[in-house]
Amino acid sequence: MDYAKEALRLHAKWNGKLETIPKMPIKTRDDLSIAYTPGVAAPCLEIKDDPKKSFTYTARSHLVAVITDGSAVLGLGNIGAEASMPVMEGKCVLFKALGNVDAIPLALNTQDTDELVETIARLEPSFGGINLEDIAAPRCFEIERRLQERMNIPVFHDDQHGTAIVVSSALVNALRFVKKDDPTIVINGAGSAGCAIANLILEMKIGKVILCDKDGILSKEMNLSDEQRRLMSISNPEHKKGKLADALAGADVFIGVSAGHIVTKEMIASMNKDAIVFAMANPIPEIEPEDAKAAGARIVGTGRSDHANQINNVLAFPGIFKGALRAQATCINDEMKKAAVYAIASMIKEEDLSEENIIVSALDPRVADVVADAVEEAAKKSGVIRQWEKTK
Amino acid sequence: MDYAKEALRLHAKWNGKLETIPKMPIKTRDDLSIAYTPGVAAPCLEIKDDPKKSFTYTARSHLVAVITDGSAVLGLGNIGAEASMPVMEGKCVLFKALGNVDAIPLALNTQDTDELVETIARLEPSFGGINLEDIAAPRCFEIERRLQERMNIPVFHDDQHGTAIVVSSALVNALRFVKKDDPTIVINGAGSAGCAIANLILEMKIGKVILCDKDGILSKEMNLSDEQRRLMSISNPEHKKGKLADALAGADVFIGVSAGHIVTKEMIASMNKDAIVFAMANPIPEIEPEDAKAAGARIVGTGRSDHANQINNVLAFPGIFKGALRAQATCINDEMKKAAVYAIASMIKEEDLSEENIIVSALDPRVADVVADAVEEAAKKSGVIRQWEKTK
Repeated sequence: MDYAKEALRLHAKWNGKLETIPKMPIKTRDDLSIAYTPGVAAPCLEIKDDPKKSFTYTARSHLVAVITDGSAVLGLGNIGAEASMPVMEGKCVLFKALGNVDAIPLALNTQDTDELVETIARLEPSFGGINLEDIAAPRCFEIERRLQERMNIPVFHDDQHGTAIVVSSALVNALRFVKKDDPTIVINGAGSAGCAIANLILEMKIGKVILCDKDGILSKEMNLSDEQRRLMSISNPEHKKGKLADALAGADVFIGVSAGHIVTKEMIASMNKDAIVFAMANPIPEIEPEDAKAAGARIVGTGRSDHANQINNVLAFPGIFKGALRAQATCINDEMKKAAVYAIASMIKEEDLSEENIIVSALDPRVADVVADAVEEAAKKSGVIRQWEKTK
Repeated sequence: MDYAKEALRLHAKWNGKLETIPKMPIKTRDDLSIAYTPGVAAPCLEIKDDPKKSFTYTARSHLVAVITDGSAVLGLGNIGAEASMPVMEGKCVLFKALGNVDAIPLALNTQDTDELVETIARLEPSFGGINLEDIAAPRCFEIERRLQERMNIPVFHDDQHGTAIVVSSALVNALRFVKKDDPTIVINGAGSAGCAIANLILEMKIGKVILCDKDGILSKEMNLSDEQRRLMSISNPEHKKGKLADALAGADVFIGVSAGHIVTKEMIASMNKDAIVFAMANPIPEIEPEDAKAAGARIVGTGRSDHANQINNVLAFPGIFKGALRAQATCINDEMKKAAVYAIASMIKEEDLSEENIIVSALDPRVADVVADAVEEAAKKSGVIRQWEKTK
């Protein structure tokens, strides 16, 4: 199928992919008097006296804002707010279709960090959580951190953490299958996704990490962001230097969030036995799966739905927000992310693991609830549940 | 029916009155590849090259944001953002149920004029129009004016203009019925609604206006806002002075947007023959309809659904936005407001006009389309259609 052509045809027909549908009819005067004035004053006053009731009387307990500045949309770059909206609407569609989480797309016409933080923070009373989307690095790190400091609802940059969670799930299963522990893991691409993957892998103590960007292994001589500099200081324990090819020689895992066709068969052949290759550049992977296999990789995953082992954020965000919202969590912390990693990994039973089956299908309807349960429990255990001030 | 009790029960059951429902299934890999990546990149790039296509490929052409700061909610006052959300959700329900306009409720946690303007202006790429709601006067005037100057989509404070339009519709029909022209019209309550009613009546040259607030007829000695001062200078041509009772003596029309039971039978009796009384304070009108009738009023309207002649904003906003969006209007100007006034008035045929029937039912399903057609035509005639810059 020509997805581009079909997408244009259907997007024009749909004229927006979401509708805002009332849960009740408005046919009689009583309908109007209950959903609107005068009856609606009663829940308003209840919330005024006890703000936590906004989770009962309004949609907050299952409502997320998907917010972007249009600065790093898919692989298309800085295409601006208007042009990003089809992606934001699509994300909201997936929230509802896969997690039964209501979601509203918002594209903001500023790319200034302070303005983004101010604007998004002011939206808090309307939502139960904030999904940041397609905001360029390194601005995205500061925006997320400052928002989470100010807001009492979870703020989650999915390009970072959603990707990191799903990659880690696939990695946990792949390592279990090839029976390796303490592997050397090369991550290529030190943008928002690559940095988040490195952070989560290190936090989970899955293995040693070497982080590369387009000029090779991160080193002091490069012009690095604060986040890259911090990661450099806690990764690469053997102080390897050089290009991606140097990093891959003798490594166990390649994780690419970079660009198409930049990994050669020779590089894969230089890796250890039972190499694991996640070539997730979209739409063209860092190396074609058949080439990686031919060069000796045992397990290959990509971001694409037309290859085995699709590593897709769709597995994470609906369930993560569903669980966090159900718990009334104030953030999505490392314990919750780890719980999501293991929940997604657990969807493939030990006996079903194979080279072609290390991660569950993005469309498996069970995933969101399994993830939500694990995330909710982790939120409660780690004590990030919203505490409401006593009123009256 | 005990609306408060029933509203609490049902709001808890509904847990939010709106859902965001996808227009397509997400069951197969193809579904995912068209609504989301990789297919979604095609409409994104089309919009990047030609921004007007955001009205084709996203929901903007039928999507409104209903935005408040929670500072003047219904008659409840400054109850804050969280507590205002049931009203905002209710308004969005009415947009969809009555006008098939999608609408998203947003309550902002600031009441600072500059911050509100900045925040709302940044939301422009996501929406086709902005419905401001329940923002206190006099801040509401400045906020609307500054936003409309900055934004290329309509910004409409419904508490002002929606009310003014529906009141004017009822007034046009009532005056037609009692066969009066150039009446003297006393408006009591010089807040956002009262000022807007005065402006529209003067703009439409319906009659002479005397504007009163709680201390009586507006006068130089009072502490007036800029808007009140401007209105004082263009109304009250006979320079009447005194209290509301003084204004009403010999007047033809009373329009109350003030407080319950502040008008006496004696005041009504002092008005001219065939007096028209719109007592719209909610939930308790300025005078009970039966008392006004007993004191000699010929036509009485209120804001309530349990009396004849309900003057309800619901008649205006769904159709006004529907028409403005369809026209891709950049604002909602006086010509469009006037068109809406006459469209709503026209829903009662000459031969059906009576003391008890001067305005169409708020739930009449034909209204929104009749209003939308008139508003769209007026937008086109008055030349406020969005002009897109040529690209490429």
